Amino acid sequence: MLKLYGFAVSNYYNMVKLALLEKGLPFEEVPFYAGQTPQALTISPRGKVPVLGAEQGFINETSVILEYIEQSQKGTPLLPSDPFERAQVLALAKEIELYIELPGRACYAEAFFGMTLPDAIKEKTKAELLLGIASLGRHGKFSPYVAGDRLSVADLYFLYSVPLACGVAKKLFDIDLLAELPAAKALLQRLEQNPNVQRIAADKEAAMPAFMAMIAARK
Amino acid sequence: MLKLYGFAVSNYYNMVKLALLEKGLPFEEVPFYAGQTPQALTISPRGKVPVLGAEQGFINETSVILEYIEQSQKGTPLLPSDPFERAQVLALAKEIELYIELPGRACYAEAFFGMTLPDAIKEKTKAELLLGIASLGRHGKFSPYVAGDRLSVADLYFLYSVPLACGVAKKLFDIDLLAELPAAKALLQRLEQNPNVQRIAADKEAAMPAFMAMIAARK
Repeated sequence: MLKLYGFAVSNYYNMVKLALLEKGLPFEEVPFYAGQTPQALTISPRGKVPVLGAEQGFINETSVILEYIEQSQKGTPLLPSDPFERAQVLALAKEIELYIELPGRACYAEAFFGMTLPDAIKEKTKAELLLGIASLGRHGKFSPYVAGDRLSVADLYFLYSVPLACGVAKKLFDIDLLAELPAAKALLQRLEQNPNVQRIAADKEAAMPAFMAMIAARK
Repeated sequence: MLKLYGFAVSNYYNMVKLALLEKGLPFEEVPFYAGQTPQALTISPRGKVPVLGAEQGFINETSVILEYIEQSQKGTPLLPSDPFERAQVLALAKEIELYIELPGRACYAEAFFGMTLPDAIKEKTKAELLLGIASLGRHGKFSPYVAGDRLSVADLYFLYSVPLACGVAKKLFDIDLLAELPAAKALLQRLEQNPNVQRIAADKEAAMPAFMAMIAARK
């Protein structure tokens, strides 16, 4: 059986967890906080979550795990079979990761964990987030899903990255990132009704106190 | 025939160009500087290069283009067919992009274009580059190629990202990033003997004056 290493507060972990649940695949969750200990680095080369434990060994990097699951396992497809359509979905997912998730992540420490970041970091995030959201508005279909009429890998990134970036933009810059993308707001609401998404949200809420205690201990 | 949009100074452009050349596929190079003009944004949603012009339309994001070419075209494979082995190659490529290319890129402006960056940006890059190279040392095989005994997509990222990151580390931090990875240094030397790599390097050199003039005009 597939093993999913990580923790329920991680948004990347939850992308893979939702993929596994939507595909109807059995899997075991293995608590793993990653980090730079020698033990963690034997599981994840850069000390990150999530990691998938497959029969042949560990697979790291969320985008890679998602494609591996798609290619090697049964269940509801989350990527089109046509190579061009598949590329459009993967490009949307990659754009969300590079141009929304990563700039937003650079400011999680201040937006969510009470630390203070240099202005240079925040200014860079602000500029990049505005360009990233504009790009999503141009390329995303939201008809009703990010890449078209079916839930896809692009929706996993959208659901678990965009609200965090919106939280950063609101808290640090007082900007509503989705102000001009009502279809994106509507999709978030639709996705939040999904029972698997609700289960993941409940698991996250239950895991949050232990996670915040760990963050506080590291400060 | 496939069209490759971009310019010969872009390292991401050259990853795709090398893939096309190594696979022996015919393609046409279309000069495209991207940017935020309305015209450029109809080709690339985030205004980036490269973009692949396929029969059905444009495909953006280098990693996505590389996988599309692999899935839809003939020629020498640059990804294994076994899903687990394929995942290892893609994870190595992704690690080089996220943990070496992107931190390095944040400092290209100072290292290569004579601008001055805030210390906060440089400190972040330094810390991330050291962790990224350590991760590559753990996960990379260098036997002799990054992911094993054959040239793969991971080598494209390695060849066109790691030397730039090394340039940043040397110039801004006086660090030899590959000091503890002699096998990686040897692989770079081996790859530089490849005739297609040499052709791409010559094309880059020829295009450099026009590119530097454009950068200077934007300052």
